[in-house]
Amino acid sequence: MTSQSVAAEDKPLNQLSAREIVDGVARGACSPEAVVASCLERIDAREAELGAWAYLDADHALAQARGLGKCAKPGPLFGVPVAIKDIFDTFDMPTEMGSKIYQGHRPASDAAAVAALRAAGAVILGKTVTCEFAGMAPGRTVNPHDSSRTPGGSSSGSAAAVADFMAPLALGTQTGGSVLRPSSFCGIVGFKPSFGTINRAGVKMAAEALDTIGIHGRSVDDVELLYDVFTTGVSSQGTTGAARQGTTGSARQGTTREEAPRIGFCRTFLWHTIAPETNDALDAAIAGLTGAGAKLTDVDLGQEFTGLGPARDVINCVERARAMGFEWNNHRDKISEKLTATLKKGFETPFTTYIEALELAARLRGNLDQVFGNNEVLLVPCVPGVAPDGLSSTGDPALQGLWTILHVPTITLPTHWTADGLPVGIQLVGRPRGDKVLLDVARWVMSCLRGQ
Amino acid sequence: MTSQSVAAEDKPLNQLSAREIVDGVARGACSPEAVVASCLERIDAREAELGAWAYLDADHALAQARGLGKCAKPGPLFGVPVAIKDIFDTFDMPTEMGSKIYQGHRPASDAAAVAALRAAGAVILGKTVTCEFAGMAPGRTVNPHDSSRTPGGSSSGSAAAVADFMAPLALGTQTGGSVLRPSSFCGIVGFKPSFGTINRAGVKMAAEALDTIGIHGRSVDDVELLYDVFTTGVSSQGTTGAARQGTTGSARQGTTREEAPRIGFCRTFLWHTIAPETNDALDAAIAGLTGAGAKLTDVDLGQEFTGLGPARDVINCVERARAMGFEWNNHRDKISEKLTATLKKGFETPFTTYIEALELAARLRGNLDQVFGNNEVLLVPCVPGVAPDGLSSTGDPALQGLWTILHVPTITLPTHWTADGLPVGIQLVGRPRGDKVLLDVARWVMSCLRGQ
Repeated sequence: MTSQSVAAEDKPLNQLSAREIVDGVARGACSPEAVVASCLERIDAREAELGAWAYLDADHALAQARGLGKCAKPGPLFGVPVAIKDIFDTFDMPTEMGSKIYQGHRPASDAAAVAALRAAGAVILGKTVTCEFAGMAPGRTVNPHDSSRTPGGSSSGSAAAVADFMAPLALGTQTGGSVLRPSSFCGIVGFKPSFGTINRAGVKMAAEALDTIGIHGRSVDDVELLYDVFTTGVSSQGTTGAARQGTTGSARQGTTREEAPRIGFCRTFLWHTIAPETNDALDAAIAGLTGAGAKLTDVDLGQEFTGLGPARDVINCVERARAMGFEWNNHRDKISEKLTATLKKGFETPFTTYIEALELAARLRGNLDQVFGNNEVLLVPCVPGVAPDGLSSTGDPALQGLWTILHVPTITLPTHWTADGLPVGIQLVGRPRGDKVLLDVARWVMSCLRGQ
Repeated sequence: MTSQSVAAEDKPLNQLSAREIVDGVARGACSPEAVVASCLERIDAREAELGAWAYLDADHALAQARGLGKCAKPGPLFGVPVAIKDIFDTFDMPTEMGSKIYQGHRPASDAAAVAALRAAGAVILGKTVTCEFAGMAPGRTVNPHDSSRTPGGSSSGSAAAVADFMAPLALGTQTGGSVLRPSSFCGIVGFKPSFGTINRAGVKMAAEALDTIGIHGRSVDDVELLYDVFTTGVSSQGTTGAARQGTTGSARQGTTREEAPRIGFCRTFLWHTIAPETNDALDAAIAGLTGAGAKLTDVDLGQEFTGLGPARDVINCVERARAMGFEWNNHRDKISEKLTATLKKGFETPFTTYIEALELAARLRGNLDQVFGNNEVLLVPCVPGVAPDGLSSTGDPALQGLWTILHVPTITLPTHWTADGLPVGIQLVGRPRGDKVLLDVARWVMSCLRGQ
């Protein structure tokens, strides 16, 4: 499919993909302002129920869209509204991090990732609800598919806003499972690139050995569009790159590979946590992929990997405790019970235990080549099941966090829905630095399983 | 030597070691306020020439010292003034990062490292001059031993202040050689722990795969005192730890080991950059250490390590460029020519080149066990020679940066002085995570070479 065949006019602008927006704007079929206005209209209609936004200034978003007209060179995201998790610094919007401590806090500058988006022509639509400091204490967002259920977290608002057609793309962060879990619960694509891919300057640190910036979108093509902005040399900074990148005003969709991929199916040592619907999702995926010619082989992680759960917990607690010394010492009364327990555990953990956890993770990263064998990606469970009832918990991060600590790229794909209309994503895991291969395979997988 | 034998009264308070201060305060021999006042007096006398401070509020420093009296439990740094490089956020002092862009900038909170120091009972004396964003464009600080020479950088003010007896300890950061080079040029101890040891939350990111927080002091014992605060579980957060750590009010000096260490002497592939005085410093060190019974063996890094220089340059440029998107897009006129060149290079570097640099570094980290062999530490050159003439450059970071990218702990020791009274430090490199062994060996080395 080429960009010319995208019929932007066939649906409301807020339902366009990011690539359709870039293409539509380039062809003059729609203006950035009209796209933003359409997203705002959707937000206006749905936000009271969904609670996805921590900060939204409609006039400011529209003004940004109008201001784009002054750009000499449209960047690769020209006119695309992006929602930003409220732990990224923004110079023009408050950054409250889901915490009373930072009510009304105004950073002096943009986080690096936000600056890169602006330079690429994106409109920073607003800030989305995050769990307190991107941890486990939920904000007010509900699941767009069932308001009695959690949207997942900690990038709750980002995932819900994208799923609910309030924005085509959003930034999140993942320290445990904060990008993939809410994406899976909300029925969208969630991509966590290799650790360190998207620069973290200006993002509130949670656990620095784990924190990874990720992308929420409604298609593999869209998350790849954003990924490319962050990984294409100079282009993201709007100097000479847009021309060099060759995508100016024409966001081509990725071509779906023809060759069936080599996929390892890995139950992981957490298989006992799996509910029937995740079992169904994986069964269906395996059947569909095998039917389409994919070679699936069983992959076993081996005994030592079972230590990754406790290791991630240790690193998470210790690094959060250290990172939050100021808040702990000065605003302890404004820290939730959940986070207090995490920080206390971190403060009490001996340094040697922390170093052992880091060393286990480093050693197992070195074993990944052997684990993957000849496979391009692994197919693994993403979440135990559908989004849990209630809003007091954002669900279990174990199935996502296992891969976060390994620093490998992971993506969740919305391939499966229960009879009740609730999504259950599957998870694909890439080899170390195999981000592009993972995206390629993910596109192929979606082409096989779409509509299931 | 036990703490009881420290005669705090024999010298001006500003010349006391941090351990002597803790001990003196605990014994009632001096008050935190008197110590701070003595440091301020020294600053008053010398700052016009030295230019070490970016921000200093004498009243506020004294008020902090007086406020310590209210602490129920004195922490392990009770009453110790510490100088902070001006890229660490401080809630009560401006954080300008050596850049006009951030003139008068007031962060909302403390960096994690600063919060840990306060919780341990330290007085945050003030903010020290840094090169622009901890890079290569110098501030106004001069070398305390010869005001026509650079103090080194980028932690220029931190090293100069400690060397000049304005503060017993200071925090710095090292992305290339920013802790060890100025320490070496200023004749003090500079310690860069293993990558990730001191939490970086609230520190302006330069290059996130390299940035390492380090410590400037006048003795191995003092830098270890600070290191212990950051690595001793809960103690640094002032909850129950001071008691648990067992150092409350009694900062015992480390015991110098009796056994001679196993030391590998490594010329590195940069030996051709070495001036006679560094050659002399290493010759003298080898003679002294061998005379004291140390077993020295020659160690060769092997051909592949020569790629680390270019790799560090790539990572430094790319990550700085990405981290500084906001400043680049909005305040380009306030960025120095030196940094502009770095950022441009970063923006122009292909992502694949960046990933190759990261992968080379990761692979060579895996070779370090083989490089070290049976040795506990390596003895290597720290700087080409004495601090260069002039203030337009802070010197060559190559000899320090080689180890920064390897993430191993390193320390420079002021073992050698030229006939002109200029210091030339040597460098010891620890095995991965061998921070404590490195400090132990460093103490032994100083005991052998002191007074050379």
